[in-house]
Amino acid sequence: MKKYTEIKDISNLSETIKEAISLKKNPHEFETLGKHKTILLLFFNSSLRTRLSTEKAARNLGLEVMILNVNDAWNLEFEDGTIMNANTSEHIKEAAGVLSQYADIIAVRAFPSLTDKEKDQSEWVLSSFEKYATVPIINMESAMAHPLQALADAITISEFANTPKPKVVLSWAPHPKALPQAVANSFVEMMQLLDVDFSITHPEGYELDPEITKKTSINYNQEEALQDADFVYVKNWSSYSDYGKILSQDKHWMMTQKKLGTAKFMHCLPVRRNVVVEDAVLDGTNSLVLQQANNRTFAAQVVLKQILEEL
Amino acid sequence: MKKYTEIKDISNLSETIKEAISLKKNPHEFETLGKHKTILLLFFNSSLRTRLSTEKAARNLGLEVMILNVNDAWNLEFEDGTIMNANTSEHIKEAAGVLSQYADIIAVRAFPSLTDKEKDQSEWVLSSFEKYATVPIINMESAMAHPLQALADAITISEFANTPKPKVVLSWAPHPKALPQAVANSFVEMMQLLDVDFSITHPEGYELDPEITKKTSINYNQEEALQDADFVYVKNWSSYSDYGKILSQDKHWMMTQKKLGTAKFMHCLPVRRNVVVEDAVLDGTNSLVLQQANNRTFAAQVVLKQILEEL
Amino acid sequence: MKKYTEIKDISNLSETIKEAISLKKNPHEFETLGKHKTILLLFFNSSLRTRLSTEKAARNLGLEVMILNVNDAWNLEFEDGTIMNANTSEHIKEAAGVLSQYADIIAVRAFPSLTDKEKDQSEWVLSSFEKYATVPIINMESAMAHPLQALADAITISEFANTPKPKVVLSWAPHPKALPQAVANSFVEMMQLLDVDFSITHPEGYELDPEITKKTSINYNQEEALQDADFVYVKNWSSYSDYGKILSQDKHWMMTQKKLGTAKFMHCLPVRRNVVVEDAVLDGTNSLVLQQANNRTFAAQVVLKQILEEL
Repeated sequence: MKKYTEIKDISNLSETIKEAISLKKNPHEFETLGKHKTILLLFFNSSLRTRLSTEKAARNLGLEVMILNVNDAWNLEFEDGTIMNANTSEHIKEAAGVLSQYADIIAVRAFPSLTDKEKDQSEWVLSSFEKYATVPIINMESAMAHPLQALADAITISEFANTPKPKVVLSWAPHPKALPQAVANSFVEMMQLLDVDFSITHPEGYELDPEITKKTSINYNQEEALQDADFVYVKNWSSYSDYGKILSQDKHWMMTQKKLGTAKFMHCLPVRRNVVVEDAVLDGTNSLVLQQANNRTFAAQVVLKQILEEL
Repeated sequence: MKKYTEIKDISNLSETIKEAISLKKNPHEFETLGKHKTILLLFFNSSLRTRLSTEKAARNLGLEVMILNVNDAWNLEFEDGTIMNANTSEHIKEAAGVLSQYADIIAVRAFPSLTDKEKDQSEWVLSSFEKYATVPIINMESAMAHPLQALADAITISEFANTPKPKVVLSWAPHPKALPQAVANSFVEMMQLLDVDFSITHPEGYELDPEITKKTSINYNQEEALQDADFVYVKNWSSYSDYGKILSQDKHWMMTQKKLGTAKFMHCLPVRRNVVVEDAVLDGTNSLVLQQANNRTFAAQVVLKQILEEL
Repeated sequence: MKKYTEIKDISNLSETIKEAISLKKNPHEFETLGKHKTILLLFFNSSLRTRLSTEKAARNLGLEVMILNVNDAWNLEFEDGTIMNANTSEHIKEAAGVLSQYADIIAVRAFPSLTDKEKDQSEWVLSSFEKYATVPIINMESAMAHPLQALADAITISEFANTPKPKVVLSWAPHPKALPQAVANSFVEMMQLLDVDFSITHPEGYELDPEITKKTSINYNQEEALQDADFVYVKNWSSYSDYGKILSQDKHWMMTQKKLGTAKFMHCLPVRRNVVVEDAVLDGTNSLVLQQANNRTFAAQVVLKQILEEL
C-alpha cells in the first residue's frame, strides 16, 4: 500500500480483513517492522478514538509516534499564489515538505467546513498533503471520508456475521448539530465492496452524494428498511444536497431496541444517547460499538503494516 | 493492587514505602514489567508534577504512555438516562469502555467543582471511570483525594524522620484562590496510618470532613500546634462546611522560618511564595519540597508496579 | 558540552558540523547513548520544526522525550521576592527545581515580549532556567537567540558551499507582524565564526544589536549587497533601536528570483510567500529551505550527543 487516503487504496480487501484479524490475535508479531521509523499524527480537529487507536497501532509495530495539534502551531495557507500578508503564517507547500523531513508516514485529520461544498469535496487539506508531502499519507478522517473507520467496521461485520450474505442497513438518525457525511460515505463505499445485502434508509433530503451511493437502494421508510436486518449501522449526517444543513430532527428516526429486533447495532462513536439511539440498545447485548472501537486499532495497524512493507 | 483510587488500596503501606525507596535506588530494575502494555493519562485539568512524574514512572517500567487532555476531545456526559441533545457529545459509559480498549491502565485527573458539594463528594468523574472502565484506574487527583501525593509524602517523611515517632503538623495557609481539600484529605488519611504524632492546625471554619479527620487533634492556635514539630506540612484549602468558600486570608497564618524553627517544611507544590510561605523557608535547608516532588515518581512507580504484577 | 543556550557553548564548531553531517548519514549510530535518560521539551510558545526536529533527534539517541506546553499548566513567576497573590501560581525556583527531578536535559522555548527591551535582553525565562535548574538547558529559541537554527544553517552552508570562502548575505524582508531578532542575531554570530564573506543588508533603522553585528558590514542598498552572493539568507525582524516596532513594509525588499540570481536561497521558515519571498524562489531549484529544516534534526542531535557524553 502506498498510502491510505481512500478505501480504493486497499488492493485486496478480504485478505486485508483477514490480516487485521490475525494482528488482533498477536498485536506484537511485527513489533520490529517500524523500527527507526516515525509516524506523525497531525490533527486539525479534535480526536479521541482515532488518535489513541492509531497511536497504539503504530507503537505495536515499533514505530516512533509524534503527535501535533496544528492549532498549537499556526494557520496554514492552502491557496496557490496568495500574497500571505494576512492570518496564515506558513504555506502547505513548506509545511508538508518540512514534515516529510521528520516523518516516514504522515496521518492527517481535517474535517469539512460544511459551508463550502466545492472546497470540502476537493479535500483541499488532505489532497494538499498528498500533493506536497514526500511520504505516504493516511486519512484519519477528512472532509468527505473516514476510511479507517470503514475498515474497522468491515472487520467487525466479518467477525460477527452468522450468514454468508448478511443484510446490512445504514440508518440515518437525528442529531442537534450538523455533522459531516464522511463516516456514512466511507461505510457505503465499504459495504459496496463486501458480499452483503446493503441498503440505506433516511428521510427525504438526506441523500448522500449519488456518485458514492450509486445503485445502492435507498428506502425512506425506516421500518421497512430494517426488516430482517443482521447489522444496523446508525449515523447522523447533515444534508448533502442542501449542503451542511439540518433538515430534520425527527425523533422517530432514533434507533430503538424495538426497531432493532435481533440485529446487531453499530455506530462509530461518539454517540448521543437517547437522541441517536436509546439507552436500551447501547446497554444491550446486540451493541457492537466497543468491538468497533477496538477494531480501530487493528484497522490502523494493518494499514500501517502494508505501508511499512512498501517503504 | 487492583487499582489506586484511594489510600485504602495499598495493602501493606510500610512494605510499599520500602519498595518505593528501593525503586528510587534502581529505577530501571523492572523495565520489562510493562512491556507490551499501555497506560493512558487522562487529564480533565492541568498538571505539571503529576503528569511528568507519572509518565516517567511508567516509562521506567517499560510501559507505553498515551496522554490525552480531555478538553482536546469533547465534553463527556456523566448522568444516566439523559437525552444528550445539549453540550455533551459522548457518555462516560462509551468513553470509559472505549478507552479500556486502548489502555491496560487508565489514570485520571479531575478536580472538584467546589460549588456542588454532594457531586464532588460522589467523585462523579473518578467513580464513573471505576464503574465503566474495564481496566485498573489510578487517581491523579480527584475531587476529594490525591493519594499519589500522599504516598510521595509518606515516602519523604520515612526518608527524613530522625525519631521513631516524629511529630507531624498539617498547617493551613492563606491563598487568594479557593483550592480543593484533596491534598489535605489524603495527607490526613495517610498520617493516620503512619506511626507519627499527627495534628492539624487551621482557623475556625476550615475543619476538613470530620469523617476524614476522625479523632485527629485540631488546634486553632498555630503557634501552639507547631511546638516541637519535626515535619510541618503547609497547605491551603477552601472551607468544607461553607463549601468552597474563602473564609480567611489572614496573613498571620503564612509559614515563616521563625515559626518553623528546626522542623522540616513540606508542601505539594505549586506554592505561592510570601503568601503561603515566606522565601526564607523555601530557600532554606529545611525545605523538602523538591524531595517530595522527586518522590512523586517513585510513588507512581510502586503503584504501577503493584498493579502490573496483578494484571 | 555542558549546555546549549548560545553558540559560544560549541567548543569546536568545524568538528561539530562534521559530526552533525556524519550523524545525518547514520542517525541511529548512537541510539543507546540516551538510554534511561529523559529530555523535557518545554514550550512557552508554539513550535512546529523545533519541536519535531528536537523530538526526533532525541529519539534517534534513545532518549525518552516528555513534552509540556507550559500554557497547559499555569503561569510561572520569575521575579524575586514577589508576594504571589496575583496570577502566577508557581515560582521558577520551584518549577525549574522540580522539572530537574524528572528530566536529565531541559529544552526551553520562550519568545520575547518585543515591548520590554531590557527584560528581553536579560533573557529572563531562559536565564532563570539556567540559574535554577540542576540539569543542562538547551535553547529552542529564546528572546534574543536561536542557536539550534544557526547551527542547522551552518551545516547547510557547509554542505552546499562550492567555494572555499562563499559570500553569504543576510537580507531583511518585509512582514506584516513584528517578529523577534533571535534568528537574525544567531545567524550573524554563526557567520562571524565561519570562514565566509558575510554582510547584512536592511533598510535604515533595522540595525541589529551592535554588540552582535560588531564589525560585520551593513549595506542599506540591497541590490549592491546581493552582488555575487553564493548564499542569501532572507529574514524579517522588527526594529532593535525602536524596539519591536515595524518601521517599513517596503515591498521592494521582498526577495525575487531576479535579485537572487544564481545564489542559494535560505530561510528558517515559516515564511510568508509573496511577502518575504516570491513563489518563484521557493519553488525554484536554488531554495535550501527544506534542507535547512532537515538539518534542524542533526543540529539538535549533535548538541544532544555532546551533552549526553558529558552527563
